[in-house]
Amino acid sequence: MSAAPAVVLLSGGLDSATALAIARERGFLCHALSVDYGQRHAAELEAARRVARKGGAQEHRIMRVDLSGIGGSALTDPAIAVPEQPTSGIPVTYVPARNTIMLALALGWAEVLGAREIFIGVNVIDASGYPDCRPEFIAAFGALARLATRAGVEGKPCRIEAPLIGLTKAEIIREGTRLGVDYAETVSCYQADAAGRACGRCDACRLRRAGFAAAALPDPTRYRSL
Amino acid sequence: MSAAPAVVLLSGGLDSATALAIARERGFLCHALSVDYGQRHAAELEAARRVARKGGAQEHRIMRVDLSGIGGSALTDPAIAVPEQPTSGIPVTYVPARNTIMLALALGWAEVLGAREIFIGVNVIDASGYPDCRPEFIAAFGALARLATRAGVEGKPCRIEAPLIGLTKAEIIREGTRLGVDYAETVSCYQADAAGRACGRCDACRLRRAGFAAAALPDPTRYRSL
Repeated sequence: MSAAPAVVLLSGGLDSATALAIARERGFLCHALSVDYGQRHAAELEAARRVARKGGAQEHRIMRVDLSGIGGSALTDPAIAVPEQPTSGIPVTYVPARNTIMLALALGWAEVLGAREIFIGVNVIDASGYPDCRPEFIAAFGALARLATRAGVEGKPCRIEAPLIGLTKAEIIREGTRLGVDYAETVSCYQADAAGRACGRCDACRLRRAGFAAAALPDPTRYRSL
Repeated sequence: MSAAPAVVLLSGGLDSATALAIARERGFLCHALSVDYGQRHAAELEAARRVARKGGAQEHRIMRVDLSGIGGSALTDPAIAVPEQPTSGIPVTYVPARNTIMLALALGWAEVLGAREIFIGVNVIDASGYPDCRPEFIAAFGALARLATRAGVEGKPCRIEAPLIGLTKAEIIREGTRLGVDYAETVSCYQADAAGRACGRCDACRLRRAGFAAAALPDPTRYRSL
């Protein structure tokens, strides 16, 4: 029996690169999907291309959905600055309904591929407090997926796999390192430069750096200034 | 107190034009959203522009998401023919996860606008058997919306309003006629020509024509041949 296909959402960051490695270890033929939603920079999508290639994805597609027209986030609206100090509550880097939109696109592709699994690298511990990274959100999307598609109606619903959801950043890094993920290829920074070098100051950089420190592993991130 | 904003999904067809009229009657400031998902023709989006303008929408946005790359439907893949005879089961005109994707985009925009309502013109009676037009799908998306967004976390979730869901096509047409909808502006046909003229033979045309007949109202549809 040939390996089953799975869709893996790939942002180019540390978490989704690890999710891809886990999906591969579980034996899936991985169809990587990145969403170009009008991010501030292209470095993230370039990183996704490298991660897909080096991470053994069968193929990699980038779907474009321009969310910059609706704005509402520091990641899609140049008029909103990326914060460089910790903030309370849901940060301005939250992109309205981003994971809902990305999972919806993944669900459509999964249905065409006949894939029964969608992998997404969300995690709730050491995360940024985004509502659409919580286990209850993932469970609700799974319930939706059972009703939303032809495959679901025919008794073959697509499951949402979030293998990192209960892991700390350090645990994610240890797991990915065990699986051979090259984190030097990934870009987590919310304001990386065109070469993919990180600012070292935004929330994503802080969480990532603390993760490598807590995992007692060398941080391969390329910073543009420190 | 000023009127509340709502997002209204507008396809350019008969149902969503009626949903817009209902949202307007309920007093909402309507922000119309059409999704260009690589449909076979542009006539549908042209119709959406006319319906938004004549239907009193505050604004109208078209978001492009190219689903033709994933295919899987007669509406997005030119290699799959639109059937001109009734079929059993879920027809090939079903676009994988289409309503999930459109509602996800509407949810993101609603959050930015501060809108608490999203109107969608799905209906289950006299509909085409699509899984994502059923009441249980709409309810599941509502449950997801409560968890997916900042507004939901803050106790102001967005509701999914599907005012046509329990209506027959004839009842929809009567309600829209009462509200002044000009159905001559709408295009339902799955294979309309560039001028928006309907084929008269596809599933959407058959349902629409039967609806006008059952409502005992004149059918203003422009057919290209009969």
